[in-house]
Amino acid sequence: MNTSRAEQRSRERLVVVGGDAAGMSAASQARRLKGPDALEIVAFERGHFTSFSACGIPYWVGGDVPERDRLIARSPEEHRARDIDLRMRTEVVEIDVEGSRVRARDLDAGTESWTAYDKLVIATGARPVRPDLPGVDADGVHGVQTLDDGQALLDTLTATEGRRAVVVGAGYIGVEMAEALINRGYEVTVVNRGREPMSTLDPDMGRLVHKAMEGMGITMVDDAEVTALRTDDGRVRAVATEDAEYPADVVVLGIGVRPETELARAAGLPVGDHGGLLTDLALRVRGHANIWAGGDCVEVLDLVSGRERHIPLGTHANKHGQIIGANVGGDYATFPGVVGTAVSKVCDLEIARTGLREKDADRAGLQYVTVTIESTSRAGYYPGAAPMTVKMLAERRTGRLLGVQIVGREGAGKRVDIAAVALTAGMTVEQMTALDLGYAPPFSPVWDPVLVAARKATAAVRSGTS
Amino acid sequence: MNTSRAEQRSRERLVVVGGDAAGMSAASQARRLKGPDALEIVAFERGHFTSFSACGIPYWVGGDVPERDRLIARSPEEHRARDIDLRMRTEVVEIDVEGSRVRARDLDAGTESWTAYDKLVIATGARPVRPDLPGVDADGVHGVQTLDDGQALLDTLTATEGRRAVVVGAGYIGVEMAEALINRGYEVTVVNRGREPMSTLDPDMGRLVHKAMEGMGITMVDDAEVTALRTDDGRVRAVATEDAEYPADVVVLGIGVRPETELARAAGLPVGDHGGLLTDLALRVRGHANIWAGGDCVEVLDLVSGRERHIPLGTHANKHGQIIGANVGGDYATFPGVVGTAVSKVCDLEIARTGLREKDADRAGLQYVTVTIESTSRAGYYPGAAPMTVKMLAERRTGRLLGVQIVGREGAGKRVDIAAVALTAGMTVEQMTALDLGYAPPFSPVWDPVLVAARKATAAVRSGTS
Repeated sequence: MNTSRAEQRSRERLVVVGGDAAGMSAASQARRLKGPDALEIVAFERGHFTSFSACGIPYWVGGDVPERDRLIARSPEEHRARDIDLRMRTEVVEIDVEGSRVRARDLDAGTESWTAYDKLVIATGARPVRPDLPGVDADGVHGVQTLDDGQALLDTLTATEGRRAVVVGAGYIGVEMAEALINRGYEVTVVNRGREPMSTLDPDMGRLVHKAMEGMGITMVDDAEVTALRTDDGRVRAVATEDAEYPADVVVLGIGVRPETELARAAGLPVGDHGGLLTDLALRVRGHANIWAGGDCVEVLDLVSGRERHIPLGTHANKHGQIIGANVGGDYATFPGVVGTAVSKVCDLEIARTGLREKDADRAGLQYVTVTIESTSRAGYYPGAAPMTVKMLAERRTGRLLGVQIVGREGAGKRVDIAAVALTAGMTVEQMTALDLGYAPPFSPVWDPVLVAARKATAAVRSGTS
Repeated sequence: MNTSRAEQRSRERLVVVGGDAAGMSAASQARRLKGPDALEIVAFERGHFTSFSACGIPYWVGGDVPERDRLIARSPEEHRARDIDLRMRTEVVEIDVEGSRVRARDLDAGTESWTAYDKLVIATGARPVRPDLPGVDADGVHGVQTLDDGQALLDTLTATEGRRAVVVGAGYIGVEMAEALINRGYEVTVVNRGREPMSTLDPDMGRLVHKAMEGMGITMVDDAEVTALRTDDGRVRAVATEDAEYPADVVVLGIGVRPETELARAAGLPVGDHGGLLTDLALRVRGHANIWAGGDCVEVLDLVSGRERHIPLGTHANKHGQIIGANVGGDYATFPGVVGTAVSKVCDLEIARTGLREKDADRAGLQYVTVTIESTSRAGYYPGAAPMTVKMLAERRTGRLLGVQIVGREGAGKRVDIAAVALTAGMTVEQMTALDLGYAPPFSPVWDPVLVAARKATAAVRSGTS
């Protein structure tokens, strides 16, 4: 299986490490630009699936999505049909940067071999944080990172008679899994180390999420560090914190993920403060002309704070893949950065944020004013007008928009896009007050909630108060 | 009632002509900035209501809004409680610019008097186009511009046994009234002179509206000029076009509105090509230091084409009022212009547009590419994912976004805001492809439909094709 340098000369070889969104988008885009005669593409994926929607797993577990395969955007066979030499269940275990080759292990056969590359794409994704707790490997304790994880959890839910579920963590995965388990008829407790759920929001906005989730019958335990998972006969029975124990027939770990960059670190590639690979704007690994990286294993530039962040999100991974594929294929594209937009829901509660939280702004050395307003998704007199709370941060003196957080019901979440575009454009909150947004009674009050917040923020900037 | 100049010296007097959104917002904002000791405010309204939502009338008629008064944002009494001398049923019949005074007629008493002003706000709104057709004044023929109109139509609907309604016009008012009448259990025919309904869209997108409305059981008659309303005993019985007659127990005229500027014209104030008053960016009538105008009676700058347009819309009127009030009250604010955003719905069909249509771009001398894509409101595998069509125009060579049109179901309409902000910021479609929009399966596919369109438009700009 060792490929000689001489063989390569006839055509370039692209090696892709990781067969999910970023890696396979890169491969597909590169293939679109260069046919098999010009570019050989070899992709390694250690798991059983390619190009699946990890973000969709909570909805499959919760029953909104009836079957696993709906979450697969493109199967191995479909990739192979596009002349991509995709090697499943094959893990790259070493990158030899000096020698421009990777060593890969066939996980089923147990064999290893080297594959040379002219161009390399690293798309190793992220791995879930798995706390080092007594009992964490017991039956009934599940992560929800991969389709295999989702299937294992579903098997447990089917096999378990008890109806008590504990979710550890109250970020996006945690709250989405709380919804999934509610939908499956479980009594749900969410145990969260933070002051409030959704630490991607400021605590005052997280408080709204806390209250709303309690209103759905979910037991919310904040400020609680899990100390152990109590087991009996190898099965989880409870989640213990310093103060209490929460009986559990099933436990879901939703503590977040870290960039999967051990391989890259071992190869001497540059990794940032958040553990992600560092790239230039064309997504080339810094200092390496023929290596690109994208998706959950890289850090991205936050355009608002000017700092690097790690934001594992399918939408970025797909963009990265497109951009890398364009550059690998001889075209040109860049990823300018992110503004930190995210949206989620728990049952009918919609939660969205973009830009900086107060603590992000503090950390970046920015002074700011904050305002919070209440409005509705539609004209107040129109049926279904649902309340929403919008918090806005603007830079002191300049009035530049720094961030927006929204908690509400139907029609709240995607309004964050208005602020996401305004942040990208560097608008001030006063400029935003003039935005020509879609208005009709079924869609918005005559002043869209985002405009109401922008007006109040403008006044706060002028008066210099927060 | 004649007020002498001498009296005025003690405090300034602001006179407001028109008691709806723009006028009363201006009065209220001016009052916030200056108390009654510094500023006297006299407002004239010829109708029975102040500050009502004309945009809400179709939903009141259709039964979604249970009562008229829900549409009134602020009553005359509430305005008066804020020290605004509001004179209802009093029509300003002359503006004496030279003499800085207005002549007003009390419509009930029949008396007239002059009132001097230091500052004048003209907010006379728009008047519906009422075609000069035989039978147009018959019973059963209704406009829907004012609350009185709405009540008259509701009275007719209650009194009429027949269940056949014809709507003349297929713009926003026309399609919204079609929905209202469907909701009331009518067989609805929409007769439209245009090639397709919704001429604020390009015809290819209007075609989608045509088909969807037909799917709702509405009879769509395009390319049809109404020649007469057939009457019998003073009641309307049918709508006649050159080719056919459509039986009608009730007829709703939704042909649009024109700026109500006869008063201003007679006073020699500058009026533009679309019949609206011309102002500077602070909404001061051009050439007149102490006269402002806003709302449906003015033309606004289209930021995309650089030309003036007339866009009667409550959201602009409210902004104008705020800005005028700030300037009148000694503060400073401007209205930079619009990008032409509008959103509407017919039953579950959502229709939105912003920026330029093909013919607007042609008229402005812009060359462009167009792309149209199909996508869904949510991830394809998520329940309720509804199809939507997005059309995008981008300038040839520069790739600057010129316009977006969206036709779809739930979740389609307000996506136009993404494009509205991008237009305001002068973004290119390629810049848009990197926008960090909210993504989660219940809210969007991994590539938001607007991003899919932006990617395709980027490719079209590069290849130079449309």
